[in-house]
Amino acid sequence: MRIDRPREYVVKKLRYAFNPASVAVVGASDNPGKVGFQVVHGLMRYRYKGKIYPVNNHADCIQGLRAYRSLKDVPDRIDFVFIAVGYDKVGSVLEEAVEKHVQVVAVATSDFKETGHAALQDELTQFCRNNELPLFGPNLLGLGNPYLNYNCGFTSFLPERGPVAMISQSGSNLVGALGASQLRHYGLSFFAGLGNKADVDFSELILFAKEDPNTKSVAVYIEGLDSPEAFISACKATVPEKPIIVIKVGGSKIGVKAAFRHTASENEGTCDADFDKIFECAGAIRMENWQEFLDTSMALGLQPALRGDNIVMVTNGGGSGLLSCDQFERRGMPMKELAEISGGLSKSLSPYMPKYWSSLNPLDLTGIAAPWQYEVAFRHCFEDDHVDGVYGSVCPAAVTDVPAITSVAITTHDKYRRLGKPFVMELQGGFECNEAIIELRNNGIPAYPTAEQAVNSIVALRKYYRIREKRK
Amino acid sequence: MRIDRPREYVVKKLRYAFNPASVAVVGASDNPGKVGFQVVHGLMRYRYKGKIYPVNNHADCIQGLRAYRSLKDVPDRIDFVFIAVGYDKVGSVLEEAVEKHVQVVAVATSDFKETGHAALQDELTQFCRNNELPLFGPNLLGLGNPYLNYNCGFTSFLPERGPVAMISQSGSNLVGALGASQLRHYGLSFFAGLGNKADVDFSELILFAKEDPNTKSVAVYIEGLDSPEAFISACKATVPEKPIIVIKVGGSKIGVKAAFRHTASENEGTCDADFDKIFECAGAIRMENWQEFLDTSMALGLQPALRGDNIVMVTNGGGSGLLSCDQFERRGMPMKELAEISGGLSKSLSPYMPKYWSSLNPLDLTGIAAPWQYEVAFRHCFEDDHVDGVYGSVCPAAVTDVPAITSVAITTHDKYRRLGKPFVMELQGGFECNEAIIELRNNGIPAYPTAEQAVNSIVALRKYYRIREKRK
Repeated sequence: MRIDRPREYVVKKLRYAFNPASVAVVGASDNPGKVGFQVVHGLMRYRYKGKIYPVNNHADCIQGLRAYRSLKDVPDRIDFVFIAVGYDKVGSVLEEAVEKHVQVVAVATSDFKETGHAALQDELTQFCRNNELPLFGPNLLGLGNPYLNYNCGFTSFLPERGPVAMISQSGSNLVGALGASQLRHYGLSFFAGLGNKADVDFSELILFAKEDPNTKSVAVYIEGLDSPEAFISACKATVPEKPIIVIKVGGSKIGVKAAFRHTASENEGTCDADFDKIFECAGAIRMENWQEFLDTSMALGLQPALRGDNIVMVTNGGGSGLLSCDQFERRGMPMKELAEISGGLSKSLSPYMPKYWSSLNPLDLTGIAAPWQYEVAFRHCFEDDHVDGVYGSVCPAAVTDVPAITSVAITTHDKYRRLGKPFVMELQGGFECNEAIIELRNNGIPAYPTAEQAVNSIVALRKYYRIREKRK
Repeated sequence: MRIDRPREYVVKKLRYAFNPASVAVVGASDNPGKVGFQVVHGLMRYRYKGKIYPVNNHADCIQGLRAYRSLKDVPDRIDFVFIAVGYDKVGSVLEEAVEKHVQVVAVATSDFKETGHAALQDELTQFCRNNELPLFGPNLLGLGNPYLNYNCGFTSFLPERGPVAMISQSGSNLVGALGASQLRHYGLSFFAGLGNKADVDFSELILFAKEDPNTKSVAVYIEGLDSPEAFISACKATVPEKPIIVIKVGGSKIGVKAAFRHTASENEGTCDADFDKIFECAGAIRMENWQEFLDTSMALGLQPALRGDNIVMVTNGGGSGLLSCDQFERRGMPMKELAEISGGLSKSLSPYMPKYWSSLNPLDLTGIAAPWQYEVAFRHCFEDDHVDGVYGSVCPAAVTDVPAITSVAITTHDKYRRLGKPFVMELQGGFECNEAIIELRNNGIPAYPTAEQAVNSIVALRKYYRIREKRK
């Protein structure tokens, strides 16, 4: 439901959703096929430090925990209530929650506006608003915070800790992001599914992310934007400090219908290009596809903004170099020749480089490049005042020492981090490169398996710099 | 060097490069830092069944094998010679090879045209042509055939067996493809690096791939196309039987220079849009980025062409559905509503589907979908004459049985394979989904971790159908 602006009471109370002293799960169950089982299980599995109160009107014990017949029976103050009961029973649970002075509620239950029960959804939302009880959902997957071992939803696992706040209207894509985290350490500060997004709004979560100390970038997946003014205002307040990356779906003809059926999002009559304008005005960076959304939000979370176009690429693989050259130009940020960036660099590197290296840019160290030669190249680039950012690339030929180059990259990055120059890596290859990517990410370096992903991330770092400059 | 048309003697002799009874490695070495070490090591490691003759003018024994001072000393006929000696010594090795009636040679050595030694490269090429001795390279990584345990180059490992012939001018991107194979079972029928591509041409390898029984699709990475007529003629002969996917780099301003410096490819004065015309005329499908190049070549290798636009998507994740809707429309192949595709499908599925399923298309089976419900949906889609292709998608919510859905997908695909309807899967998630992707691929189903990748592959299957139709 529409809001004119982010509401202060909501932003303030959100901390009870992401760090509650006590959680009640209404609809808690001992049946693993039930959402109410998975939520309790997820909370216990990661040893969440807060108290957990299963609520089930037929059971005294759920998964070994004392269970209660209703919220009212819980002999404690409850910060957060997760509701997973039939849609017709949600109303009475909300009434109890208000009586019990609960701080925030989340409704996992579907079968509201998306299946035709719009009036009921609006009525419950209005009830919550009248009582200043922020409501997540309905029709949501859950939320969590890996820094607090807090997993409250029907997701199988907690993601890795990291810099990105993931705010997703879709539960399935949220699960996709968590999967990327498990597979390749896409690190999250917190995550939230919003589902039908009846009450708690993107804008309010963005303002919450702005204050969250673990969050360095905010990723927002949107199916419908019913409160663009609130969104713009939250972004404008946040963007000077933290970058916001958005993906907006439902712009295609059939997508309009699918978005309504999925999260009751209304896109009828909207024009996709209008969203470009909204996001531009907000200072949010829009991505077109999911992979790029993940890749760039990570880069923006790990690295500083890129203050100029002078990127130097250091590679041992001419093919990665060429894919990068073309992709930079396609994205409107053509690479410059090294001579154009810095007159001295080629000369100062030359004595150390392999015989047939190319000093054009990409600096092609050729297939025989040794780790120490990477180190020299990285160091000279970081130390050269004309270089704005460094892009390292590794192709694992049989003579390439990938782990040693990875170490060199991490050490050099640590040493020069204070300079505020972005550093991004690309490693296309098999198991060894995959492990290197994970290690680099864990050490604050955005690393990717293809050249285009790395380039897109560098371009996003540059875009963010421009956005921030305009707003100074 | 330019050719007017694919040469018969080259195409005919290529089998000696990919399946030689005997290989000599000139420049073979016991020093692991040397290319000549890695090539011998790679051949032995996978127990290549042919004979291996190390040639080194200072050693009698290399890696436990009897070594020879020169090619002439080898007491056997030699099918294929891999050369890894200094650029100034290559000429005399080629002379010996001609004397010895070698069938094919490959020159790994760099420092030819790409570093200024164009005259020498041309001279050696002309010498080989005069003697009808096909020459791979110079400046190449190697080649191989996983079906024969044959790895002849300085790559660390053999890729998985599969349907794609990978012909790459760049060694580093070739290594990238092998890495994708190791990580996610991107299966190859054979692979070849071409490097400077002085003699053996894309067109000749394409015609070789046309006849290779393991090859079902041909992937060609191009930095410079000096013989477009030969390329077009080879593609035209091949495309009615096997799809060809190309990626052409070096079109950007700085890429023109980098491509010359990398593989001596000449793009000065060419216009990137002209290549679109060449590829269209050839019937080759051009891709813009590397990931898509890998993804679509695999799909085209594993699945039949898509004869119509009637794709039905079966998913438990509305988010994947929406990303797909938008991507299909962006790629010019908008999804149709189920009712538009087949009047009866929704009705016949309805009794079996979860309560809140959506029959719009994507068919959203919702987060609680059971494997048997996937089976019913897949089966009905395959059996419906109005459906041209089936697109399955799995989002691993906590209650989702990913392995069981994977089994269902494999069984159903096997059962209906004879119908010639493409089947593509998307599974966004962590470890479990990654394993499922590998299993699906090993069972002939192209499966991907993001919706856009799956959609791009489906669109490519449709493009190939159209190309083939036009040529009938």
